[in-house]
Amino acid sequence: MTSGWSALVLCIILGKRSGYGKVPMPPHSMVLCMVGTGMLWVGWYGFNAGSALGADAIASNAFATTTLAAAIAGFVWAMAEWVTRKHASVLGFCSGVVAGLVVITPAAGFVTMSSAVIMGVLAGIIPFIAVAYLKKMLGYDDALDTFGVHGVGGTLGAILTGVFADEKVNSVVGGLKDGLVMEQIKAVVVTIIWSVVATTVIALIVKVTIGLRVTPEVESAGLDVSEHGEEGYIN
Amino acid sequence: MTSGWSALVLCIILGKRSGYGKVPMPPHSMVLCMVGTGMLWVGWYGFNAGSALGADAIASNAFATTTLAAAIAGFVWAMAEWVTRKHASVLGFCSGVVAGLVVITPAAGFVTMSSAVIMGVLAGIIPFIAVAYLKKMLGYDDALDTFGVHGVGGTLGAILTGVFADEKVNSVVGGLKDGLVMEQIKAVVVTIIWSVVATTVIALIVKVTIGLRVTPEVESAGLDVSEHGEEGYIN
Amino acid sequence: MTSGWSALVLCIILGKRSGYGKVPMPPHSMVLCMVGTGMLWVGWYGFNAGSALGADAIASNAFATTTLAAAIAGFVWAMAEWVTRKHASVLGFCSGVVAGLVVITPAAGFVTMSSAVIMGVLAGIIPFIAVAYLKKMLGYDDALDTFGVHGVGGTLGAILTGVFADEKVNSVVGGLKDGLVMEQIKAVVVTIIWSVVATTVIALIVKVTIGLRVTPEVESAGLDVSEHGEEGYIN
Repeated sequence: MTSGWSALVLCIILGKRSGYGKVPMPPHSMVLCMVGTGMLWVGWYGFNAGSALGADAIASNAFATTTLAAAIAGFVWAMAEWVTRKHASVLGFCSGVVAGLVVITPAAGFVTMSSAVIMGVLAGIIPFIAVAYLKKMLGYDDALDTFGVHGVGGTLGAILTGVFADEKVNSVVGGLKDGLVMEQIKAVVVTIIWSVVATTVIALIVKVTIGLRVTPEVESAGLDVSEHGEEGYIN
Repeated sequence: MTSGWSALVLCIILGKRSGYGKVPMPPHSMVLCMVGTGMLWVGWYGFNAGSALGADAIASNAFATTTLAAAIAGFVWAMAEWVTRKHASVLGFCSGVVAGLVVITPAAGFVTMSSAVIMGVLAGIIPFIAVAYLKKMLGYDDALDTFGVHGVGGTLGAILTGVFADEKVNSVVGGLKDGLVMEQIKAVVVTIIWSVVATTVIALIVKVTIGLRVTPEVESAGLDVSEHGEEGYIN
Repeated sequence: MTSGWSALVLCIILGKRSGYGKVPMPPHSMVLCMVGTGMLWVGWYGFNAGSALGADAIASNAFATTTLAAAIAGFVWAMAEWVTRKHASVLGFCSGVVAGLVVITPAAGFVTMSSAVIMGVLAGIIPFIAVAYLKKMLGYDDALDTFGVHGVGGTLGAILTGVFADEKVNSVVGGLKDGLVMEQIKAVVVTIIWSVVATTVIALIVKVTIGLRVTPEVESAGLDVSEHGEEGYIN
């Protein structure tokens, strides 16, 4: 969630890529997008199931809820594209998978399988709306949809964790149950304020001192060459 | 096994790709084939070892038999190519690895390491013969060799599980041992009949209602663009 | 360590690629380099943590020390490039990650987190010096920097294991502690002599019988086509 809200602030302070909105800027490779999503999904199990710090029932629950939410969100996002644009895309499926992973993460060790299914469906719809409509409406340039997927998805997941946390899954919930949604909403508000304020301060300091943005010439040539002295592919 | 026999039915009902047998249709990228095989192999451990539903001795056995069978089948398939065509290819190695995974899957938690080695060798030879000779003989167009690898490999694995299952590995085998091969052969026959009949019915319903095959123009332009509205790579 | 020292011997006996030092030979794809490093890193956990042969505290320790050393070595190597060449490259990060994995491997189940941090820093510096300066000085052609990363890194890791092994992490160390560094240095010397002598003998036998090197024409056309009858990419 923090990364998503910080990304929104940076998108606004940094400004748009030159040519954004005038020339099409499709992702470079759907194939690598799919490979990366597969690796991310596998790695995410270490994150969600590993957080139980034991090979126990909560770890198994986290593993299964993570799988369900990611798979369903990928499917639902692609279906949402199919309904609204007549094409279900690989990019949409991958975005949905990541949104599902983001949404289930705070909840993985606290909710039942059925709740994970509902959270997966919502993860395929609400971040999709943010990416497909909100971004256009607000006009910021977010090349990786970090705000739509991580910011909106993370906020959604934090609140839904309060809604669906179940003490049958994790006894820790027992003591917290009353007003858990309200607690989560408070935490969400604090996190948003913190991320937005802290990122703004850091970004402005960087902008004033070493600079946030490369020159238009460097941007057009590509940062691989200028910043890292190497290219992605060489024949 | 089900997927492989269903694929054979679909290959026959769907027909060949236009130009099949006239123009060469090599796989697009050996590099991605290798990346995908690596990811599949890692994921397969979740499938085979995870099926024990516990971090116990049977899971460890499944992990080790899976590794042995996949590695040996990849090597044997490449050697079979080397003997018959003078070139051991990456595609052959990858096909052998997948065949080894398919063959060991029903047996992973039931057979010893030595049996896994024998199953790996057979997984590198029998599906190879299906892909290299049977496909040409029968004349169907199976772009991913799903029948050769999954259908033939799955059937082989199901039968070999009956041959090699050992109660020293898994006590469940004790009560089943007598006539286990015959039980597995019965299951194989039922599975083939079920897959072939059900897939035929489904495919014919789809063919009559929404259609199974795109037009030749769309096929030539590629389904990425027509069906998904995106391309694999963009410069 | 064995692979690295054997590689050095082979680099010398095999000789340089034709054109080495005259035409630039950058890696073909940074993208695949990154994908491969990610897959290697994940697989390495099976190697280091799996060596505990149990889901116990030593496995957890190995998992965490492996993560720390690899991440830190990747960062330090890229920083070393930035200091000496003004560009931190993806190739440098990936080399550092592998060097970190190599250095921590013998030590993963024996050292504390703090020691893993120190070993990660050294893994980012010493193999970097070998790759960036020693290779040029000695003049051998090592396309994958197997000697720099695996040979130098493996030797470093073996010795540092003697320095940092702690019986609080693994009780096995208790009985060995006195003079462990000296024992490790003895093992390192024996391993180097064994690898160098055995590889020299094998390489010379291969050279005399079936030959070690393809003709210049085949080398220029590429071994994918000549040896494996396939190409990496087909449009």
